[in-house]
Amino acid sequence: MANQWIAGVDLGGTTTKIAFITMDGDIIHKWEIPTDNSNEGQNITTNIAKAINEKMNELGESKDNLLGIGMGAPGPVDYETGIILNVVNLGWQDNYPLKESIEAAASLPAAVENDANCAALGEMWQGAGNGAKNLVCVTLGTGVGGGVIANGSIVQGKNGAAGEIGHITVIPDGGAPCNCGKTGCLETVASATGIVRLANEELLKGEAKGELAERLAANGKITSKDVFESAENGDALANKILKEVTFHLGFVLASIANTLNPDKIVLGGGVSKAGSILLDAVNENFAKFAFSAVRDSTKLALATLGNDAGVLGAAWLIKNKLNR
Amino acid sequence: MANQWIAGVDLGGTTTKIAFITMDGDIIHKWEIPTDNSNEGQNITTNIAKAINEKMNELGESKDNLLGIGMGAPGPVDYETGIILNVVNLGWQDNYPLKESIEAAASLPAAVENDANCAALGEMWQGAGNGAKNLVCVTLGTGVGGGVIANGSIVQGKNGAAGEIGHITVIPDGGAPCNCGKTGCLETVASATGIVRLANEELLKGEAKGELAERLAANGKITSKDVFESAENGDALANKILKEVTFHLGFVLASIANTLNPDKIVLGGGVSKAGSILLDAVNENFAKFAFSAVRDSTKLALATLGNDAGVLGAAWLIKNKLNR
Repeated sequence: MANQWIAGVDLGGTTTKIAFITMDGDIIHKWEIPTDNSNEGQNITTNIAKAINEKMNELGESKDNLLGIGMGAPGPVDYETGIILNVVNLGWQDNYPLKESIEAAASLPAAVENDANCAALGEMWQGAGNGAKNLVCVTLGTGVGGGVIANGSIVQGKNGAAGEIGHITVIPDGGAPCNCGKTGCLETVASATGIVRLANEELLKGEAKGELAERLAANGKITSKDVFESAENGDALANKILKEVTFHLGFVLASIANTLNPDKIVLGGGVSKAGSILLDAVNENFAKFAFSAVRDSTKLALATLGNDAGVLGAAWLIKNKLNR
Repeated sequence: MANQWIAGVDLGGTTTKIAFITMDGDIIHKWEIPTDNSNEGQNITTNIAKAINEKMNELGESKDNLLGIGMGAPGPVDYETGIILNVVNLGWQDNYPLKESIEAAASLPAAVENDANCAALGEMWQGAGNGAKNLVCVTLGTGVGGGVIANGSIVQGKNGAAGEIGHITVIPDGGAPCNCGKTGCLETVASATGIVRLANEELLKGEAKGELAERLAANGKITSKDVFESAENGDALANKILKEVTFHLGFVLASIANTLNPDKIVLGGGVSKAGSILLDAVNENFAKFAFSAVRDSTKLALATLGNDAGVLGAAWLIKNKLNR
């Protein structure tokens, strides 16, 4: 039998990642194309279909060897119909029939899911989840996103809003405003943006000394990476921020774990690159707030797939369909 | 075809509820037997089997008309094997093979699940859940329990500890001790016991006036029902307690809903009998802490099945098996 591949697609506002992936989850080839969101996004799916065809030709493979296209999209998706309910930065109208559109453009069966959910499925299949059937992924990036897998399936929720972990309230009174319209959301303290905000607030209290203050003076601004590196070097102010961030993270993850008792909670996104200094402190707070039987069984782990999580999870959608 | 019934069993520490239930969820006959937990609980399953047989005889029905026995048990259960992992008040050793034991005693196929999960399944099937595939049930009784249904299936979690909603922390610092070993759990403020504790703390601050203080003086103690009734009558102290309880409940339910976006969150147990005075105040806090798309779609509701939820959910286990 010839090579049987799945095309995994991770659709983003400016760039689309594409990969050919085997049924065993090996990435054979991966590349990126720009996302053309002009003209109400009418070129997006045809461009993807074209890119896939051209790459198959380039690799000397017949298109018959493609089993299907799995796609992650940046918005709430109705998995059964493949309709993306609303999306701000791709030009599409609300309720765009994405599955239908890519199937027509590529003449291949497709499956579409929210991109954060795809990342969670990727980590379940090939990453830190290690095949776990109950998994929560939390992406600590510019914002805080999440994906919940229960009994091996993504939980979408009534309105496609399951996994909105970034908008769990951690400061009920007097928290910072969140982009979502509420205040005191986890995202306001545990996203890269939130960490920098907390640090700036401390630094602006005046007379701040130490490494983080020096980095601010030298560069005119700081990043969340500055905070973690300075904390690692023993800077007091940075450690104060770290303590606050990981308190809230540990608290929320324990609440989630007390509800779902997943095998693993996987932390991904740029902030998670801080590694053990983040994970250890989150673990400490998690242990404080988790029910004993949960503390003993739910493990926290760092994501291992990085940017590949999305295309792998997207490909898994097709694998899962074929296995049924 | 003769009447095809399922026996639903809700096994409790002192009493076992049994019901004959149709595939449509109608309760044909229900009754209770004492739970005999002497001799390491060795009579429990034989007594249940005997009670079922005798009742079928009494009703003039052939045992062939029973499709199986579904059972809810008060402890974590491994659904696949039907083993109850540990249970404190039935006399059984850890890892007792409950499914095997009842199948042998009754010569009928059986399915076993945790009792809180059965109550959730019952509400999903015939109660407030109204067939919703994503449902969270919170039981506000002496303690606070929970059951989580995602994509139509119970979420058990790695260690059978999913749904431990009562042990989500609501007071991170200086909360009251919980039976679980932590402090500040939801159970310490939102169970009947917790509500009474909060009220007593206020009443003992001295010079308490009003209806709740009068009820305490008259009866020597108060119940959670006293608190809700006094609040309804405008008592200031009772309303202060109500405000605190519903703040924490609304906060936790919003966190859960931001994670799972269920169709419904159903409040059951003795405390939920307070009705709209409880539900309205919880709703108000829930709306404050829920992400907008969650607030618009996840509804809070009072349980409608009362004590029948357990036997109905237990029967559903068999129905679900037969439908597969």
